[in-house]
Amino acid sequence: MPPLIGLLTDFGLTDTYVGQLKAALLRVAPTAVLVDLTHAVPAQDVRGGAFLLWSAVEAFPEGSLQLAVVDPGVGSTRRAVAARTRRGDVLVGPDNGLLVPAIEQLGGLAMAVELTEPAYWGPRTSRTFHGRDLFAPVVGHLATGVALEKLGSTLHHLESPFSFPPPMEEDGFPVGEVLHVDTYGNLITNLPGAVLPARFRVHLGTTVIEGAPHAHYQVVTSGEPLSLVGSAGLLEVSVRDGSAAEVLGVGRGARVRIEPA
Amino acid sequence: MPPLIGLLTDFGLTDTYVGQLKAALLRVAPTAVLVDLTHAVPAQDVRGGAFLLWSAVEAFPEGSLQLAVVDPGVGSTRRAVAARTRRGDVLVGPDNGLLVPAIEQLGGLAMAVELTEPAYWGPRTSRTFHGRDLFAPVVGHLATGVALEKLGSTLHHLESPFSFPPPMEEDGFPVGEVLHVDTYGNLITNLPGAVLPARFRVHLGTTVIEGAPHAHYQVVTSGEPLSLVGSAGLLEVSVRDGSAAEVLGVGRGARVRIEPA
Amino acid sequence: MPPLIGLLTDFGLTDTYVGQLKAALLRVAPTAVLVDLTHAVPAQDVRGGAFLLWSAVEAFPEGSLQLAVVDPGVGSTRRAVAARTRRGDVLVGPDNGLLVPAIEQLGGLAMAVELTEPAYWGPRTSRTFHGRDLFAPVVGHLATGVALEKLGSTLHHLESPFSFPPPMEEDGFPVGEVLHVDTYGNLITNLPGAVLPARFRVHLGTTVIEGAPHAHYQVVTSGEPLSLVGSAGLLEVSVRDGSAAEVLGVGRGARVRIEPA
Repeated sequence: MPPLIGLLTDFGLTDTYVGQLKAALLRVAPTAVLVDLTHAVPAQDVRGGAFLLWSAVEAFPEGSLQLAVVDPGVGSTRRAVAARTRRGDVLVGPDNGLLVPAIEQLGGLAMAVELTEPAYWGPRTSRTFHGRDLFAPVVGHLATGVALEKLGSTLHHLESPFSFPPPMEEDGFPVGEVLHVDTYGNLITNLPGAVLPARFRVHLGTTVIEGAPHAHYQVVTSGEPLSLVGSAGLLEVSVRDGSAAEVLGVGRGARVRIEPA
Repeated sequence: MPPLIGLLTDFGLTDTYVGQLKAALLRVAPTAVLVDLTHAVPAQDVRGGAFLLWSAVEAFPEGSLQLAVVDPGVGSTRRAVAARTRRGDVLVGPDNGLLVPAIEQLGGLAMAVELTEPAYWGPRTSRTFHGRDLFAPVVGHLATGVALEKLGSTLHHLESPFSFPPPMEEDGFPVGEVLHVDTYGNLITNLPGAVLPARFRVHLGTTVIEGAPHAHYQVVTSGEPLSLVGSAGLLEVSVRDGSAAEVLGVGRGARVRIEPA
Repeated sequence: MPPLIGLLTDFGLTDTYVGQLKAALLRVAPTAVLVDLTHAVPAQDVRGGAFLLWSAVEAFPEGSLQLAVVDPGVGSTRRAVAARTRRGDVLVGPDNGLLVPAIEQLGGLAMAVELTEPAYWGPRTSRTFHGRDLFAPVVGHLATGVALEKLGSTLHHLESPFSFPPPMEEDGFPVGEVLHVDTYGNLITNLPGAVLPARFRVHLGTTVIEGAPHAHYQVVTSGEPLSLVGSAGLLEVSVRDGSAAEVLGVGRGARVRIEPA
């Protein structure tokens, strides 16, 4: 079987940019199987894209490919890279930090190359659409079995201009922050299940949520907040039948404090 | 050929939830062919999702699979089910009414199981993302030929907490309501073509539409309302080059009355 | 390999219309590979859809299929057509001008037929959803190798109710207009790279952009405008880290004047 290929960009779905990227990839690897992760990363929000990529890659089988493009520096001196993880996946995109958290999630960096070999690029070259003209053909060649080493010169590290804040402690209690607000308005924090007490209360803005972790959304009444370890393995704050972001009035960066109960 | 698999959720396309679900499915069934029905069901609108699934399943070949997730009760006591229809399709999702109208559309229920057999679930288990961790792997196994009976214990009926209102009669004339407003602003009613007279007028709010059914949109002038039996086999009210919902100021639940002309 | 099939419609992604169209196509050609170009063409904006299709088709391999539906005249006397280009691609859709610029982009029209042969249509026939009931089955049959000639009667020309304005000259300098505003707010003009001087300034509304063409987005500071030949081969005006449409207050149809520098 050809490897599964995940796609994540900030191209949106109103233009044809995602379609052009896919056509350029399938021109090289006609039997590739593509999975859209999302194309709705806010325009040029590298950090937001990095979180979304990080949260999704573990669902893919080992040895999958990921093509991620959130790329305000396209055409400038930022490098184009492909990176193999210790789990065996290969991630392709700009060397601007976008890929780094996902690589860590997949066991860390095993090997990376700068994409300097034009034999594996597409027939057109634009200064502004490396997704179609460089990254997609490279991923197509990887999908057909071209070795990573052939795509360019070896890199010994990737740029890492940001990182997600690690969980902290304050008076012995876990303290963290909201990393992401999802489509339902759930507030996803940086606190993994492992740092949490067996039973606890959550302080978030002016809200105190008792009785956490909750078993599921329906243990509270409609409109009430609850908190549980969500599908990414991180503490989340939700509101039953509503948006926690709206009801509680908080968003990305909001501070979360845990107290054992 | 592997069966075609339709996907319908309220996950949206801004997060990676749909992509994670697909990766989990393709991990089990790498050659499966997936068709997105929609992922824009309003959050937790089970009834809205049921209408959209109902309206779409007939376009699929017999023996297709459908995976539908609109699931406010995820993690609670609501059951997870797979149901075979008399036409031979299998629908998988929460047992909250979401699947029921589509099953009726495909000939009615032939057999159902509760998804109690963890051997067919995914490697991760979350309380909040059964789409990825339970439903998608189960659908993958069905696509590779696992028998429905193996997935869990037989169920003799599904939960049916709501139904779409049937067409009524008033003074011998058909009376119904708007079930759905589509992306163009077309108002789709619960009145099938079979209950309508050969020529009629439509009363909807304060609007009276003469000369129905119209042959197509261009028989009226731009901005004017018309009414015809649409692609779901139901009476629809439209406005040429505009949105009937906006121009006529009505939406889901609005009453429609038919008079022969 | 079966041909790649591009899809472009104004159906949106909130309803199941795109999914129904795909199911109808895959019912005929189960191994077809589908690429969504976009389904977010503004409702019934044939001209906007024609631009988007034109800008995308060249990314596909020669011999690809395109199915495009923006079709306010569905069910009326407008014809349904399939057209082969000199490059060898086949485009299918309504005969309302939607396909014409893309056909020109692919070398011009080689042969066209009106889709009059019901043997290649789907099992259902609606007056309002030719995408599912006529175009998709026809494209499925083309994908499985049915000859274009079998689909209906030969046409000697297609309707061409509009065209994109060609670049003009004024006092010997190129003058054009904005054809499209993309998802980032980039303003895409009708001026191809070939008509531009080596170095120039751009006049657009009350803005004058010096130093064009710029090499990439990062040669100006955040919030400043720049101009370069974009991925469609046309002059574009952008704002670094922002939307040119918003910052400069202009949109489709705005006049652009070039002065050599």
